[in-house]
Amino acid sequence: MSEPQFERLALIGIGLIGSSIARVARERNLAREIVVSTRSAETLARAEELDLGDRYCLDAGEAVEGADLVVLCVPVGANGAVAKWIAPSLSPGAILTDVGSTKKSVVDQVRPHVPNGVHFIPGHPIAGTEQSGPDAGFATLFDNRWCILTPEQGVDAAATEKLSAFWRGCGSNVDLMDADHHDLVLAIVSHLPHLIAYNIVGTADDLATVTKSEVIKYSASGFRDFTRLAASDPTMWRDVCLNNKDAILEMLSRFSEDLSAMQRAIRWGDGDALFDLFTRTRGIRRSIIEAGQETDAPDFGRVQSKTDD
Amino acid sequence: MSEPQFERLALIGIGLIGSSIARVARERNLAREIVVSTRSAETLARAEELDLGDRYCLDAGEAVEGADLVVLCVPVGANGAVAKWIAPSLSPGAILTDVGSTKKSVVDQVRPHVPNGVHFIPGHPIAGTEQSGPDAGFATLFDNRWCILTPEQGVDAAATEKLSAFWRGCGSNVDLMDADHHDLVLAIVSHLPHLIAYNIVGTADDLATVTKSEVIKYSASGFRDFTRLAASDPTMWRDVCLNNKDAILEMLSRFSEDLSAMQRAIRWGDGDALFDLFTRTRGIRRSIIEAGQETDAPDFGRVQSKTDD
Ligand SMILES: NC(=O)c1ccc[n+]([C@@H]2O[C@H](COP(=O)([O-])OP(=O)(O)OC[C@H]3O[C@@H](n4cnc5c(N)ncnc54)[C@H](OP(=O)(O)O)[C@@H]3O)[C@@H](O)[C@H]2O)c1
Ligand SMILES: NC(=O)c1ccc[n+]([C@@H]2O[C@H](COP(=O)([O-])OP(=O)(O)OC[C@H]3O[C@@H](n4cnc5c(N)ncnc54)[C@H](OP(=O)(O)O)[C@@H]3O)[C@@H](O)[C@H]2O)c1
Repeated sequence: MSEPQFERLALIGIGLIGSSIARVARERNLAREIVVSTRSAETLARAEELDLGDRYCLDAGEAVEGADLVVLCVPVGANGAVAKWIAPSLSPGAILTDVGSTKKSVVDQVRPHVPNGVHFIPGHPIAGTEQSGPDAGFATLFDNRWCILTPEQGVDAAATEKLSAFWRGCGSNVDLMDADHHDLVLAIVSHLPHLIAYNIVGTADDLATVTKSEVIKYSASGFRDFTRLAASDPTMWRDVCLNNKDAILEMLSRFSEDLSAMQRAIRWGDGDALFDLFTRTRGIRRSIIEAGQETDAPDFGRVQSKTDD
Repeated sequence: MSEPQFERLALIGIGLIGSSIARVARERNLAREIVVSTRSAETLARAEELDLGDRYCLDAGEAVEGADLVVLCVPVGANGAVAKWIAPSLSPGAILTDVGSTKKSVVDQVRPHVPNGVHFIPGHPIAGTEQSGPDAGFATLFDNRWCILTPEQGVDAAATEKLSAFWRGCGSNVDLMDADHHDLVLAIVSHLPHLIAYNIVGTADDLATVTKSEVIKYSASGFRDFTRLAASDPTMWRDVCLNNKDAILEMLSRFSEDLSAMQRAIRWGDGDALFDLFTRTRGIRRSIIEAGQETDAPDFGRVQSKTDD
């Protein structure tokens, strides 16, 4: 195995994403030493039981001492406080990055605390599941996914390349773009789908005319697909909404406009308009499968438990 | 193997659903003879290549002659014409059923053509995939799913029981309800999810600020989940919209109301309201998994092709 690229990797936050980075970094020898830090003693103890790192600290400041790569893996709203905490302990020349699902707000929160000589390069791996916590992570999470970095003007190109190489080591392809564009793209590909899923599950839950047991029994006809995204972590998604407000509201309003047009077509029985809409959406799934971003098995290749109820 | 319950099963339409019935009926010996009919010579030839039945007829009237079970497996808008066509050839005492995703409109279309002495019992197996045609079907499609029958007042109870036993033979549990209630339940668990999925994929497709290639690359962050439903058959879904208009419009308007409330919470930065909504939707997925209607593997247990692009 080749020499690791980093001497000491500090992970602040060790949930789904942090623990997946820990696992892949260990497995593929991406850092000589892994230091794990998290807010609560419970999660830290669990991380140690899972043997995710080489050292464990509740004190995030202590964790980043001497680290040449620091990755913040906490909900987006928490990055400012964490950055402030660790700032005095960051080593000159270190790379500081994050994995947050929004970028502009993370930059606004973190940037003021970054000491001179530290390379701050925001990041976002486009990979995840609906589960949370250190048990949910796995080493192959980032394989063949994309990781977006949003380096600001003037950031050291060598540092950006070194961080890109780290993500490639994790199995990802790397794209660079600016933070605003990231937030717009993610608003449509991730934030809107999650919000719509939460909303439809909420609507179903509120109905008086259809019982919850009916919704559950017959959910295989479509509804269950939405429950996966709607089972995601509430803190993470509250923070995403609060931190990418403008782009999300923009996408929500476009979605609503389109929905009104569809509603009108249904009300007036305009079968041709409906047929056209239902036809043009087919191709995109094929493209996603061909890009290696989705399984081509019918029904996501679900294997169902055959419980009788 | 026990004696088959039906002497001759006639399937009118041999796509995903019809061919799945053919396969399971053959495999589990649910009918002594299977007669397959479909609109086009091409599909009929393909059904024969796949060895889905014992006899093949382009003439639906001929296909139902002497059949004691006739299952219409065509898009909901086509049931009226098919019923009219086969009516003169139906045998006294035969059970006539369908698999359409809406029920009230199928009853309205089919009922006027049903001869005296034929037991008409509408049905809807709550099982499917996003794929279509005779190649897409498989024998286990109905296993552990629900099948809803909507017998009208006065229909022969023994016939209803015989049809229920057939669906249990296919692997399903059977529920009885009236057609109006079926249409309301399915509007929320199936029709609304499909329409929302079509709509969001359409919205993404229309954006000028985010390219299609970005949507595809980063789709693993949520969007790809919606593309499965949005890849469903356009004819089937046009027909569903035209044939369950009132219930669908009702659900769409509730969904839109809820979405406006969410939009407002985002606009005003009401983190607590968002957190509450995102929390209460979590439980329902757990219930669906416990009811055996969904896999408990993270990310639907997707196994991804590892193509590089
Ligand atoms: N989940 C996804 O699919 C996904 C995908 C891409 C990016 N992301 C981003 O990755 C980040 C982490 O998400 P995750 O899914 O890994 O979350 P997670 O599994 O819930 O883990 C969150 C971690 O952050 C810590 N934490 C939570 N609140 C904190 C606070 N206020 N201050 C300091 N630490 C706090 C937790 O500590 P304790 O357990 O010790 O309290 C835990 O270590 C988020 O920014 C998210 O936007 C998530
Ligand atoms: N797909 C699902 O997930 C699902 C689930 C539950 C219920 N359903 C219901 O099951 C029924 C069949 O759906 P499917 O998915 O099996 O469809 P499919 O795979 O597209 O097959 C449709 C069949 O109907 C025939 N057909 C189409 N248009 C027709 C017309 N105007 N007149 C006569 N025959 C026509 C086709 O014949 P040719 O190929 O010869 O043209 C084919 O044999 C629909 O009513 C649908 O609502 C579907």
